Amino acid sequence: MPSSTFASLDPLFRPRSVAVAGVSSRVDPSGSGGGLGFLRAIREMGFPTLHECRHGCTSGDCATGCLYPVNPKADEIDGLRCYPSLTAIPGDVDYVISSVPAVAVPGLLEEAAAKQVRAVHLFTAGFSETGEEDRADLERQILERARAAGIRLIGPNCMGLYVPAAGLSFMAGFPTEPGTVGMLSQSGANAGELVRFAGARGVRFSKVISYGNAADLNESELLEYLGDDPETEVVLAYIEGVRDGRRFAAALRRAAARKPVVILKGGRTEAGSRAARSHTGSLAGSIEVFDALCRQAGALRVASMDELVDLAVGFRFVPPPRGAGVAVVGAGGGVSVLAADAFAAEGLELPPMPEDVQAAFRAFVPIAGTSVRNPIDTTSVFRPEEFVRTIELAARPASIAALVYHTSFSWGSRSAGDQDQRAADLARNLATARNRIGKPLLISVHPSLSGEGLVTTGQFVERCVAEGFAIFDGIDGAARALAGVRRWQQTRVDRGLA
Amino acid sequence: MPSSTFASLDPLFRPRSVAVAGVSSRVDPSGSGGGLGFLRAIREMGFPTLHECRHGCTSGDCATGCLYPVNPKADEIDGLRCYPSLTAIPGDVDYVISSVPAVAVPGLLEEAAAKQVRAVHLFTAGFSETGEEDRADLERQILERARAAGIRLIGPNCMGLYVPAAGLSFMAGFPTEPGTVGMLSQSGANAGELVRFAGARGVRFSKVISYGNAADLNESELLEYLGDDPETEVVLAYIEGVRDGRRFAAALRRAAARKPVVILKGGRTEAGSRAARSHTGSLAGSIEVFDALCRQAGALRVASMDELVDLAVGFRFVPPPRGAGVAVVGAGGGVSVLAADAFAAEGLELPPMPEDVQAAFRAFVPIAGTSVRNPIDTTSVFRPEEFVRTIELAARPASIAALVYHTSFSWGSRSAGDQDQRAADLARNLATARNRIGKPLLISVHPSLSGEGLVTTGQFVERCVAEGFAIFDGIDGAARALAGVRRWQQTRVDRGLA
Repeated sequence: MPSSTFASLDPLFRPRSVAVAGVSSRVDPSGSGGGLGFLRAIREMGFPTLHECRHGCTSGDCATGCLYPVNPKADEIDGLRCYPSLTAIPGDVDYVISSVPAVAVPGLLEEAAAKQVRAVHLFTAGFSETGEEDRADLERQILERARAAGIRLIGPNCMGLYVPAAGLSFMAGFPTEPGTVGMLSQSGANAGELVRFAGARGVRFSKVISYGNAADLNESELLEYLGDDPETEVVLAYIEGVRDGRRFAAALRRAAARKPVVILKGGRTEAGSRAARSHTGSLAGSIEVFDALCRQAGALRVASMDELVDLAVGFRFVPPPRGAGVAVVGAGGGVSVLAADAFAAEGLELPPMPEDVQAAFRAFVPIAGTSVRNPIDTTSVFRPEEFVRTIELAARPASIAALVYHTSFSWGSRSAGDQDQRAADLARNLATARNRIGKPLLISVHPSLSGEGLVTTGQFVERCVAEGFAIFDGIDGAARALAGVRRWQQTRVDRGLA
Repeated sequence: MPSSTFASLDPLFRPRSVAVAGVSSRVDPSGSGGGLGFLRAIREMGFPTLHECRHGCTSGDCATGCLYPVNPKADEIDGLRCYPSLTAIPGDVDYVISSVPAVAVPGLLEEAAAKQVRAVHLFTAGFSETGEEDRADLERQILERARAAGIRLIGPNCMGLYVPAAGLSFMAGFPTEPGTVGMLSQSGANAGELVRFAGARGVRFSKVISYGNAADLNESELLEYLGDDPETEVVLAYIEGVRDGRRFAAALRRAAARKPVVILKGGRTEAGSRAARSHTGSLAGSIEVFDALCRQAGALRVASMDELVDLAVGFRFVPPPRGAGVAVVGAGGGVSVLAADAFAAEGLELPPMPEDVQAAFRAFVPIAGTSVRNPIDTTSVFRPEEFVRTIELAARPASIAALVYHTSFSWGSRSAGDQDQRAADLARNLATARNRIGKPLLISVHPSLSGEGLVTTGQFVERCVAEGFAIFDGIDGAARALAGVRRWQQTRVDRGLA
């Protein structure tokens, strides 16, 4: 049964109309957007503007929803009619994005109260995170006023919402189509990086919430929300501080019992903890306590953005393997040794191929310069007619629960055209092989350095993503993703949940 | 004083004439080159061919040196006269690359003995690494015959030599100009990856030796050689097995007392150890013992190719810092927190900026959305006129021994042209700042996803490399490189060597 948190927050993330207050007509020097950035990002998502209202109304008072720039010094911004204040907007306003200076926020809140706004996202920074008492006071006053008016606050000092199904976004270039991965993040840039990097590997999102100083909406409530959200199947988090350890622990247990939860904890060291205090005013707490919480709940903690992206790809695209045995397939002796080390270091196993499978390999794999034990290091992966057979044979033993194929497009003396053809053939052959083996098949493509290699690698990634593959930048990423999925599944089995 | 190993091996790595035996006229399907690949890679390095001999001789018997393809079935390959056998070559042959099948190697060795060849590199595989007794026997017989003839063997089952100063290479596209980093590697592909990835970041090489099964020339002797080599200032290694622990330990101590030694150990797990046995017939041994050896010697062990590349860049381009204090400068709160965590996790410190320096920052850095404690998270890095001042201020405290500047070219709504200009300005401003601060300044550029972002990132990397900067793909790499350089320097101080 959904919690009361879910019922109370869900409408906030689906506003019919949005006002952006403090939109200037130029982008600031950091290029991060500010008010204008939000306006443009939201239009890019297809959120209807007043001009585009399908009902032809001009009041903004219709169910389609509208997007309103607010700036007393402009009549029009980016071709949209601009309003001098929230109260000057003719129709209802559900959601306000504040890009005004901190001192102007109390006034904005009064207008929001008058308009019966549901939620205000404070992109505005310069509050408790500065460490200055008067600014922390201002944050407390704003919170009190918002509570009195029944307005929920997101932030301050954050990027707010990316909810593609509701047409909301906070950065240009995010995917417009919705998906099943949700994220709460105390850093907007980290959330943006996750969306872009995981997005390039096929991950799509239900809700991504950048919540900054967490004056009102905080990590516990957002975790309760995403844990209960039926549109969210995987929960990611970048968290710097936890305000209410007991509530957070309960939310984590509840969420992780239902879906994979992967957390990047910022401030895991003393220096990082000090940085977190300057960033969002967070008290980072002990990483040992945090790890214990994660262990008890069955959530996974990672140590870098790269790992968070890899786990997102893993949980989205890798079906849980039915064992710890992995077959590693590709060409190259040294890379095979390092691949074996990487999987074993993550607690997975590389069972040797049985004698009969080795013999079957030897029917078409020469003995010199190859190995058919496991890792399977064989040039047969370069011969299209033998590629599918190689994967099939490697998948045959009962001891093998998952496979990893590794490749790259930077070696050798092939022409660019040959490489493109190889990339296309490979993606098709991989899909054929996967359909035959009925076991998870992960792909690792080592980054290329040459210009053509980069282009080919990009095309290969796109083709593999289109085929629904989990694809990784290298063996280490594939290993930690598979290990994460395996660990999650084992925890569920251990707890009688699966 | 150079060891006897140095005196005996050095001439092998500077052959006047090279024969490539078993050159077919087409590249094999793996694209890895084979005999033809070696021939082309060596020509690319400018090694003179018979046609190109500056003395106009046709016998090949001149001091300039010559490159000879050998294949009884061809008269000419790639425009070069092809000889039916080694003995048919008119001039002396110092060095032979064997790409003939394993069974043909004994015959080739007889010819090499007749020609008084100094060294034979056996690219040929299919020996002890197969685990088959008769093939291991063949390897032993070949070794005995070579020893009797006074011929040193490199390999079998390896890529051999990349010695730019001598015009030798084993892969297309390697830099032609020599440098000061040496490497011994039991994997040719890993060595190739190191050369390419570290090469793109400005590292150049004295000698890179891929030595495969190590039947004759092995890790101990090569480490002795590179440790003594005056052309080598940094020693890198990819090692799967150690044959003679005592000799290796002595070589490691001797080398690491003189120059930084960084080792990637393949087969650090049970599964990796089995893979190493199949790859080069190596017995990987216990990683704990190996780690103890490294600790005692003051060598560094890394766990991945990425780390090896980062340490190569670090040792080549980062002057030893005079303390553990790091200032992290860039824009972005979340990335600053993670950067602080990354440096602290590597044992470095982020001392807070003193009050007076914070006050100086506040003269031009707004309080909202920034931090001037450390990490310095400030948008002033985007304003060229304030950039150098930002770096200078961050470097001012005595507690700061090194600085890291992090950036990326994927955010914001700038046009591609703006980004290119920013990249050019940034590299110039970074050089200006470095010249003023007199402390190591590392650069981290987060990879971009967009096509234009990639191009701009590439241009920025090139400009920074041209300015002699140590540049890294992300904060984690910069942190481990700086920590490695610091650790190496501390070990030297502890041992009274510096």
